[in-house]
Amino acid sequence: MTSASAIANPPLRDAMSTAASLADLFEQSAVARDRLGGTPKAERDLLRDSGLLSLTIPQAHGGTGAGWATAMHTVRIIARADSSLAHVYAFHHLMLATVRLFGSAPQWENAYRTTARRGLFWGNALNPLDTRTVSMPGDGARTFTGDKSFCSGALDSDMLIASARQDGQQRLVIAAIPTDRAGITIMDDWDNIGQRQTDSGSVRFDRVRVEEGEILLTPGPLGSVFATLRPLIAQLILSNIYLGIAEGAFRATKAYTRTQARRWLTSTAAEQSQDPYALERAGEFWLALEGARLLNDRAAALLDDAWAEDEALSHELRGETAIAIATAKVAAIKGGMDVTTRMFDVMGARSTTGRFGFDRYWRNLRTHSSHDPVDYKLRELGDWALNDLAPAPTFYS
Amino acid sequence: MTSASAIANPPLRDAMSTAASLADLFEQSAVARDRLGGTPKAERDLLRDSGLLSLTIPQAHGGTGAGWATAMHTVRIIARADSSLAHVYAFHHLMLATVRLFGSAPQWENAYRTTARRGLFWGNALNPLDTRTVSMPGDGARTFTGDKSFCSGALDSDMLIASARQDGQQRLVIAAIPTDRAGITIMDDWDNIGQRQTDSGSVRFDRVRVEEGEILLTPGPLGSVFATLRPLIAQLILSNIYLGIAEGAFRATKAYTRTQARRWLTSTAAEQSQDPYALERAGEFWLALEGARLLNDRAAALLDDAWAEDEALSHELRGETAIAIATAKVAAIKGGMDVTTRMFDVMGARSTTGRFGFDRYWRNLRTHSSHDPVDYKLRELGDWALNDLAPAPTFYS
Amino acid sequence: MTSASAIANPPLRDAMSTAASLADLFEQSAVARDRLGGTPKAERDLLRDSGLLSLTIPQAHGGTGAGWATAMHTVRIIARADSSLAHVYAFHHLMLATVRLFGSAPQWENAYRTTARRGLFWGNALNPLDTRTVSMPGDGARTFTGDKSFCSGALDSDMLIASARQDGQQRLVIAAIPTDRAGITIMDDWDNIGQRQTDSGSVRFDRVRVEEGEILLTPGPLGSVFATLRPLIAQLILSNIYLGIAEGAFRATKAYTRTQARRWLTSTAAEQSQDPYALERAGEFWLALEGARLLNDRAAALLDDAWAEDEALSHELRGETAIAIATAKVAAIKGGMDVTTRMFDVMGARSTTGRFGFDRYWRNLRTHSSHDPVDYKLRELGDWALNDLAPAPTFYS
Amino acid sequence: MTSASAIANPPLRDAMSTAASLADLFEQSAVARDRLGGTPKAERDLLRDSGLLSLTIPQAHGGTGAGWATAMHTVRIIARADSSLAHVYAFHHLMLATVRLFGSAPQWENAYRTTARRGLFWGNALNPLDTRTVSMPGDGARTFTGDKSFCSGALDSDMLIASARQDGQQRLVIAAIPTDRAGITIMDDWDNIGQRQTDSGSVRFDRVRVEEGEILLTPGPLGSVFATLRPLIAQLILSNIYLGIAEGAFRATKAYTRTQARRWLTSTAAEQSQDPYALERAGEFWLALEGARLLNDRAAALLDDAWAEDEALSHELRGETAIAIATAKVAAIKGGMDVTTRMFDVMGARSTTGRFGFDRYWRNLRTHSSHDPVDYKLRELGDWALNDLAPAPTFYS
Repeated sequence: MTSASAIANPPLRDAMSTAASLADLFEQSAVARDRLGGTPKAERDLLRDSGLLSLTIPQAHGGTGAGWATAMHTVRIIARADSSLAHVYAFHHLMLATVRLFGSAPQWENAYRTTARRGLFWGNALNPLDTRTVSMPGDGARTFTGDKSFCSGALDSDMLIASARQDGQQRLVIAAIPTDRAGITIMDDWDNIGQRQTDSGSVRFDRVRVEEGEILLTPGPLGSVFATLRPLIAQLILSNIYLGIAEGAFRATKAYTRTQARRWLTSTAAEQSQDPYALERAGEFWLALEGARLLNDRAAALLDDAWAEDEALSHELRGETAIAIATAKVAAIKGGMDVTTRMFDVMGARSTTGRFGFDRYWRNLRTHSSHDPVDYKLRELGDWALNDLAPAPTFYS
Repeated sequence: MTSASAIANPPLRDAMSTAASLADLFEQSAVARDRLGGTPKAERDLLRDSGLLSLTIPQAHGGTGAGWATAMHTVRIIARADSSLAHVYAFHHLMLATVRLFGSAPQWENAYRTTARRGLFWGNALNPLDTRTVSMPGDGARTFTGDKSFCSGALDSDMLIASARQDGQQRLVIAAIPTDRAGITIMDDWDNIGQRQTDSGSVRFDRVRVEEGEILLTPGPLGSVFATLRPLIAQLILSNIYLGIAEGAFRATKAYTRTQARRWLTSTAAEQSQDPYALERAGEFWLALEGARLLNDRAAALLDDAWAEDEALSHELRGETAIAIATAKVAAIKGGMDVTTRMFDVMGARSTTGRFGFDRYWRNLRTHSSHDPVDYKLRELGDWALNDLAPAPTFYS
Repeated sequence: MTSASAIANPPLRDAMSTAASLADLFEQSAVARDRLGGTPKAERDLLRDSGLLSLTIPQAHGGTGAGWATAMHTVRIIARADSSLAHVYAFHHLMLATVRLFGSAPQWENAYRTTARRGLFWGNALNPLDTRTVSMPGDGARTFTGDKSFCSGALDSDMLIASARQDGQQRLVIAAIPTDRAGITIMDDWDNIGQRQTDSGSVRFDRVRVEEGEILLTPGPLGSVFATLRPLIAQLILSNIYLGIAEGAFRATKAYTRTQARRWLTSTAAEQSQDPYALERAGEFWLALEGARLLNDRAAALLDDAWAEDEALSHELRGETAIAIATAKVAAIKGGMDVTTRMFDVMGARSTTGRFGFDRYWRNLRTHSSHDPVDYKLRELGDWALNDLAPAPTFYS
Repeated sequence: MTSASAIANPPLRDAMSTAASLADLFEQSAVARDRLGGTPKAERDLLRDSGLLSLTIPQAHGGTGAGWATAMHTVRIIARADSSLAHVYAFHHLMLATVRLFGSAPQWENAYRTTARRGLFWGNALNPLDTRTVSMPGDGARTFTGDKSFCSGALDSDMLIASARQDGQQRLVIAAIPTDRAGITIMDDWDNIGQRQTDSGSVRFDRVRVEEGEILLTPGPLGSVFATLRPLIAQLILSNIYLGIAEGAFRATKAYTRTQARRWLTSTAAEQSQDPYALERAGEFWLALEGARLLNDRAAALLDDAWAEDEALSHELRGETAIAIATAKVAAIKGGMDVTTRMFDVMGARSTTGRFGFDRYWRNLRTHSSHDPVDYKLRELGDWALNDLAPAPTFYS
């Protein structure tokens, strides 16, 4: 819960500048916190205080009422400075969207309202590929038992979206429950090569009681065309984080090259920022980033269109949106891996100094872009391009 | 001049479908005409008859009044089928824009009106890098003498934009003159590996009389910020031709693969259109084409904005537009070279059969994309990205 | 048969210079003959007269007795100038090797001896993927009936390796027969975008009588580990042709750039051959070609080792050789497609002039490298690298 | 100095297995030591004890007498496990070679003999691009004063090669001096994103007395064609370290993929090691590594040839060797950056777990390959390929 008693929901026009101010703050400590890993408690509280956690909550339910295009921009802005914070921030909105898409009106109205009023921070315990957590029916409630991995932002969260499998059921049982519910232990076991402050470790469920009213059943996971927007929102969030990382990397390259980089001894240029190869590399980075920017913005606009359709969403628009998002994501990954690797070719040997922490861009992107395989995204794009087939909705497409 | 006595200027809403219909026609003979080379007289006359030659002429002057975004789309549509015809069609509009941007109001009003009324087809004899043609002052007129290369669409044209250098003058002398002016010989000497029906050969000027009123002096070549839109229009035309070629190549790949391609003997897929590698390659093509499409569309929108500014156009917007266009063009080249080369990996050995003519995509793109070096475009993008410097206006940027 | 009554088998030390002299001759007419297509009769006769058709025939059987490393070098040398002639020349040796590997000692001794003495030129009618030709048992002989595609070098050949399927048999029936055998019609129907003088068209078999002694049965197609060298020889021939094409393309680029190319107007270099981007592109070409050269030479050395093992050849050495050859081939394709495409970036717009015919490098390579899919070659390499599995022998690996 | 009183110089045939045994040991602690940074004292002592520090010392002077090809292989073997140790180990041999190439016979005979007998470990303080250290003439000796950066392996070294500039002199003053000489302070200030145990930090010289006999003057730095082999040895060392890193990365990928990786949910393969895209990626890695291996081996063989020429070394062979080494190095960098980045695409999300430390391959390669710019290496290759010009000898080419 937020540390402030009253949260000012920033008017829509302020969301970007709020995000930018936060990002500036986050950037100052990003290198140090990347080394530390762990939970960025102070920064998470700044997010709570900022009002940005209510950004995607409709105004009717106490939020800012921003669309996805706006939300994605705030994610990207924060990711330029600190992709771990962008990650937990964005996943908070994804969790809210999960209630909206998988749950009933009373459920999501309540989730929206409570979150807006109390400044709740939502965390993730849904990983559908980890099937260790089991739901068992009981007396007027169910119990969740077992472990769940890759639970980004669960630590220091107020609410969780948790999933479990239930014998005889095809679909996952997905619930929205308070993080402090008895039986939930959030392990501080995330120590990865990147996204080091996302707390994407394990959650242990030990006979956790889940009320029927907490289960998201109507329409349930991927239970309607509209509900299948959930993985698309997740994918577009990833894409914007990747793009933000790449943009941050280029911003750092630009600043360093113009102030500290040295021309090579056989360069014909007076300064490294005028070196013909530095310029061509920077041009290649620009090309990749501009393409990814346009693809991401177009995808977000389509997502907003699809979202506005609500339960009237057609398979066609869903498919088109899915492809636009997949396209944007692959572009962000490919462009980003290249920028975060070859930026050192522009900056030179001294830019590998540890205190700059310039490797964090690659490590963060490499870690997060391994979320689901880029080859299979390309395959989806190919099936669309060659066979006019939209991807079958799963938790990853 | 058009073969029809009266030209129907198609309303704007019809430009696309008119272009599409023409493209369908052109495609049927594209392979055969590529082999022949020479002047596509019948097809040029169809362009005259279609009214598309008046597309960019304002309605006040008898034209359709379409903006550049629309015009570029018609170029792209035609280029998918036949990039030679797209080339001469687009250069016609570039020549009109040259009068508009370099000339005085009476000059361009006259050019617009006459072109719209009489269905004139404009050709190019401007190549600024070929300095062999010289302008000499005379009695109330000048004379142009010398050769000029790369004069796309000069054959079978009604009007020419010609350039010459004049001793003691920095800038080129540029004139709009009738193609049948005495002393002009258009050589039928274009025989290149691609763009084979663009007649991009030589024009010989033998003491050609050029009236003062035919010289574009106010503001003259690149003579104002607004006038420097001319190279940008040229570059965006190239970019849309390249993109159209790549789109045409992918369209052909799709049709062939779904109907004629054979799966490889060790493929696990039932058909080649389901082969995992065919799908991934198609996904890569899609990725490149989508990025190029968005970049081109954004660039055209910016160009329309810049065009609307007229002489109030700022350096800032000019620079932004230049960068957007350069970005789009490099994306189109890089994506296009890849698609037109690796399309055969998807289609297989039999797709190299001569009657399909699938190599024409690569040959056309390779020929035309050598117009000005992609490395120097990347350098311009790098100077913008790294140093916030817009490209200095030249005839190529 | 050769036009000369007596053929001088050149001593081994002369094979390279003989190939080089022929290549010089071939190059002079390569552009013109590429346009014509059809059978390069005069050049084929020069090959006959040169003695190079006996290059791989052991000295004991009247030939030069060169190993595969030497043979592959001659292929590469000729391919630099004219990859069609390299193709039919190399396939001649592949056909001889087919008799050696699939046939009995009397069969290949006879084939070697007759070929060496009479200067026979062998052609190909084996394509295993085209199953239209059927072998039917008859009275003391079989008959082949049906069509066969991709029969490189069948026109103007003296002997053919032909294949047919026989009901109830897994393996192809493969025979060595005179080209002028009754019932064989060689169609002049090859008109592809590249390798235009390879006559890789169709052969029609109309109840062609094939004697039992002409069938290669001991050990038969892929009938022993040693026999499975046949596809490896084929693949290494392809690889050397590809590499030769790429080397020819670079040689042309170098000559053109140093004598005719123009520096770009914003280049800081005095000449195009000193332009920073031209130099970097040339460096990239060199890198790709050098790697491909070493990989091809190493593969040829391994093939010579494997060949020397004769029927004692182990699966292990066969596997290692297969992988070395596949690696070389993929490197040659990837490097070659890049060089033959981007060479124009170094040379500039004027290099697209038709009379230079510089597009033939790409067209030849693109056509021939579609022979079997590069993606599946990479998959084979991956299975070796990741799972220590050598490719299962087929006619393509 | 070595901890053992008597060092067994391993016979040449044991060098590889000694290196392999050490590498196995180093690998066990490589992840942990990468986190720590600092000086790998225990491992450096194991190198001392192994006798490998005498590997390149001629047998006549008490060493093993291995050639460069052998030495480079040991570097590569160690780099697969721990590229920091490979770095300081290889630089030790580079320092010995520096005395051999820049110094007089008495100097290098003494250096060889003392090193072999006493097991000295040489460190680097030569960085020619850092011009802060100044040599001043004095009374029968010189003094070095100032800082020097990028001094790999200076900490825990016994001897140093140090450089300083002297007013009025073009060339650097280079000396071989004991590390414990008064006035030398080796800073423990290396904290970079990779090569974290190379101690490549600063050395401070405070009026350090350098005897005339310690100055390498005959022929002096780059003072003869033979002496210009020094930068080539340095470059080939870098190249083999890069290649070793890439090979280590692939080895880790293979082990992980076959035992721990999971197939993607839409994969048609039973296991990730059979996934079509995993196989193709592994094939691409193999392709890059094989090419780099052959190029490095060929370059080492040429270096051995050039080394054997001694002062009779021609410009031609020096140039050829320089190009072979530059080619190998660029191939190792390009292949290596790709393998170390995309290995995660094969292994999947869980491979980003911190305890595997799989990011160290990229970080080590990225750090070390920024040593001198790959773009300028490509330019050198281009000048050779296009203009037949060998690189002018500098400390980097």
